[in-house]
Amino acid sequence: MSKHCTILCAGEIGKIAVPDGSFVICADGGLAHAKKAGVEPDLIVGDFDSFGQIPDGENVRVHPVAKDETDSFLAVDYALERGCTDFLIYGGLGGRFDHTLANVQLLRRLCLCGCRGTLVGADGTRVTAIYNETRTFSPALTGSVGVFSLTPESRGVTIKNLQFEAENVTLNDHTSLGASNAFCGKPAKIGVADGILLITWKE
Amino acid sequence: MSKHCTILCAGEIGKIAVPDGSFVICADGGLAHAKKAGVEPDLIVGDFDSFGQIPDGENVRVHPVAKDETDSFLAVDYALERGCTDFLIYGGLGGRFDHTLANVQLLRRLCLCGCRGTLVGADGTRVTAIYNETRTFSPALTGSVGVFSLTPESRGVTIKNLQFEAENVTLNDHTSLGASNAFCGKPAKIGVADGILLITWKE
Repeated sequence: MSKHCTILCAGEIGKIAVPDGSFVICADGGLAHAKKAGVEPDLIVGDFDSFGQIPDGENVRVHPVAKDETDSFLAVDYALERGCTDFLIYGGLGGRFDHTLANVQLLRRLCLCGCRGTLVGADGTRVTAIYNETRTFSPALTGSVGVFSLTPESRGVTIKNLQFEAENVTLNDHTSLGASNAFCGKPAKIGVADGILLITWKE
Repeated sequence: MSKHCTILCAGEIGKIAVPDGSFVICADGGLAHAKKAGVEPDLIVGDFDSFGQIPDGENVRVHPVAKDETDSFLAVDYALERGCTDFLIYGGLGGRFDHTLANVQLLRRLCLCGCRGTLVGADGTRVTAIYNETRTFSPALTGSVGVFSLTPESRGVTIKNLQFEAENVTLNDHTSLGASNAFCGKPAKIGVADGILLITWKE
């Protein structure tokens, strides 16, 4: 069973690339994106206030509008029950700002249960979070990178092979110190010993 | 001396409304917005990589491109030295996502030093943060409101006169529970006893 999950949300969306064997979930209005892109969802969840009608099918899970969590949180719940550990989330940035913020909280949630999640914006922006780990990035990446502490402090932050490097420093959650870094053609490494870092770049 | 400060940043911007007597700072490319809107800045700060040239004038403070903090953080530093306590920040949402995130960190910073800050997006989106306090909102506001914990937990959260109310609950930083609330024609109150809440709505 695939441990990878692709979630399509209702926000702005660019090119969708679903990895082979990934379990595809449409969260509400994400179904319109899937139909347009010719992507076949394995599961469809939501209150369907964005999509406008409740779709038919055995793979549809309908929730009330007045529910506790957003459709993207519900989609992740289903995927976690299924054992998924790696998440690519389209359409979760650049729409209503409360949904964008909820999706940043969602990245924290995924970290805290040992999973990896990446939000993909319509313009290629990617946002991920890492928790007590080191992530390596392809040397083919170009452009700017931002690194932010999502915990009050992030200790043991190490940044290698980016324009500005750091070795075992502490970042807090009320500084812009990690903004406006840049890839420079080498395999970049960003790591944290104790804390959650949010990392944003473009692909 | 005014304790209010209006900061114009380089990101997407809508209609600018500068309160009477507010100290106006342009952060780098925010100067282009000021010129277009006929707003006279009291201070101009930045590395001017966005603006494209270093402006003339006694009220210009130039910083190197390879500096630690973003131009909006530098602008806030000057305003804090001057004794400002209330901040309205335009052009800080909706551009490069690392700048948006840096500006969310900036709201945390303002909270932690006893100040109030609000980011204003091009589409009227407003984002503010409150720290161990209660904020009241005009009954004239309509539309959706999102409430998120910026601290691992926010205790004693109370939400009154919104579509969904809460009394002395705890929110954490990995839930979407506070998304998709709504104004309903009454003077809304959102408060927290112990923690930092981020609140987003539209005007």
